[in-house]
Amino acid sequence: MIRLPMSDLCEGERELDAAQARYVSRVHRLRVGDCFVAFDPHAALECDAEVVSARRVRLSKTRASTHVTSLAITWIHGCPKGDKADAIVRDATELGATRIVFVPTARAVARPAAARVERWARIAREAARQCNRGDAPVVELGASFDHTLESVGATTRVCLDPRGVPLRDVLMAKPADSLAFAAGPEGGFTDGELRAATQHAFVVCRLGTRIMRTETAPAAVLGAALLLGG
Amino acid sequence: MIRLPMSDLCEGERELDAAQARYVSRVHRLRVGDCFVAFDPHAALECDAEVVSARRVRLSKTRASTHVTSLAITWIHGCPKGDKADAIVRDATELGATRIVFVPTARAVARPAAARVERWARIAREAARQCNRGDAPVVELGASFDHTLESVGATTRVCLDPRGVPLRDVLMAKPADSLAFAAGPEGGFTDGELRAATQHAFVVCRLGTRIMRTETAPAAVLGAALLLGG
Repeated sequence: MIRLPMSDLCEGERELDAAQARYVSRVHRLRVGDCFVAFDPHAALECDAEVVSARRVRLSKTRASTHVTSLAITWIHGCPKGDKADAIVRDATELGATRIVFVPTARAVARPAAARVERWARIAREAARQCNRGDAPVVELGASFDHTLESVGATTRVCLDPRGVPLRDVLMAKPADSLAFAAGPEGGFTDGELRAATQHAFVVCRLGTRIMRTETAPAAVLGAALLLGG
Repeated sequence: MIRLPMSDLCEGERELDAAQARYVSRVHRLRVGDCFVAFDPHAALECDAEVVSARRVRLSKTRASTHVTSLAITWIHGCPKGDKADAIVRDATELGATRIVFVPTARAVARPAAARVERWARIAREAARQCNRGDAPVVELGASFDHTLESVGATTRVCLDPRGVPLRDVLMAKPADSLAFAAGPEGGFTDGELRAATQHAFVVCRLGTRIMRTETAPAAVLGAALLLGG
């Protein structure tokens, strides 16, 4: 079934914006009378939509989205270079993160503008649509690593570093109620940052024995978490 | 320690090629007398190298590489579009694959030329260097999916499809001696291909309940395998 993210769902007719209209009539070639599922990833609501003209649809009563994540997973990432943050949002959304926070760290060279958050939120909605997920993660730009660590309420907390203990020691010790992972930027975390994470009950863990690129970490680590929880 | 892939290692002096010389003197600014580790990822050998001039190094006696993979992992992938194959080689190398085979499948649109194999091998060597791995996977272009399935000797075999059983049911059932995974191209596998895989003792498995993009599969699935084996 074709799915299209849409905000403020409510029963009745509505106008599509230009991007939505293009998606409905050009990308999927839907015609008057065809149906799709409209979903609001932030409210985790969805409804049936029927095309009534090239620019208008009729929405049914809303219902709770199917395919929402069952486990709260926070993904904290030291601001990476270039457009790697886009790929990180895409991978982390696809693999179940419910909150993604980019943070400035000692070795992070990039300092994304606050306006990037809107772009990341759009990428997250689009990734949710692609992977058939009915909700989307909140994406934030943290003020500092310390501040972000303090904001985490997860019961199982992991800070990724090649010097850590095997990730399985933490993930397989007990079923997690909620998870938080912190991954460094290209140069990794400093000793001071690892200490700060430890003080906030994060366990320093590694996945495998090789050095992982910063942009590979979300898919590899969340894939590992999915093995146990999916 | 700086590491540089180099073929046919043997004790004594040798000339660097242009790319190696650039890497040594421009990228890492090594000077006469500085040392690095030269490694041959295909032979899984390494040795110490000392810079004797801008274009020449002196190699020590070779030894078996440290940081070689301990588990044989075959990664079979339906030929993806565009340059996704490059990213797949990079991710699969970083996460421990020892053999990567791209195969034509019913829904694979791309038909890479045989010459791409040399490019993929170069990407694999470079990824091995980056992730501090002393060996590199063999990369092949399979003649057909059937032929590639027949070539697999792994004791644990997984074919990825959203309709499968949870991956943990197979990976956590017993410790694997050797692993093989098959992932479809953008459109996934056909029912016929899943049947062919099953006939070759592959178990159809899913990781999580969402739809994974073809290019996310290697990092997520090999990350999951690393959780158990790393």
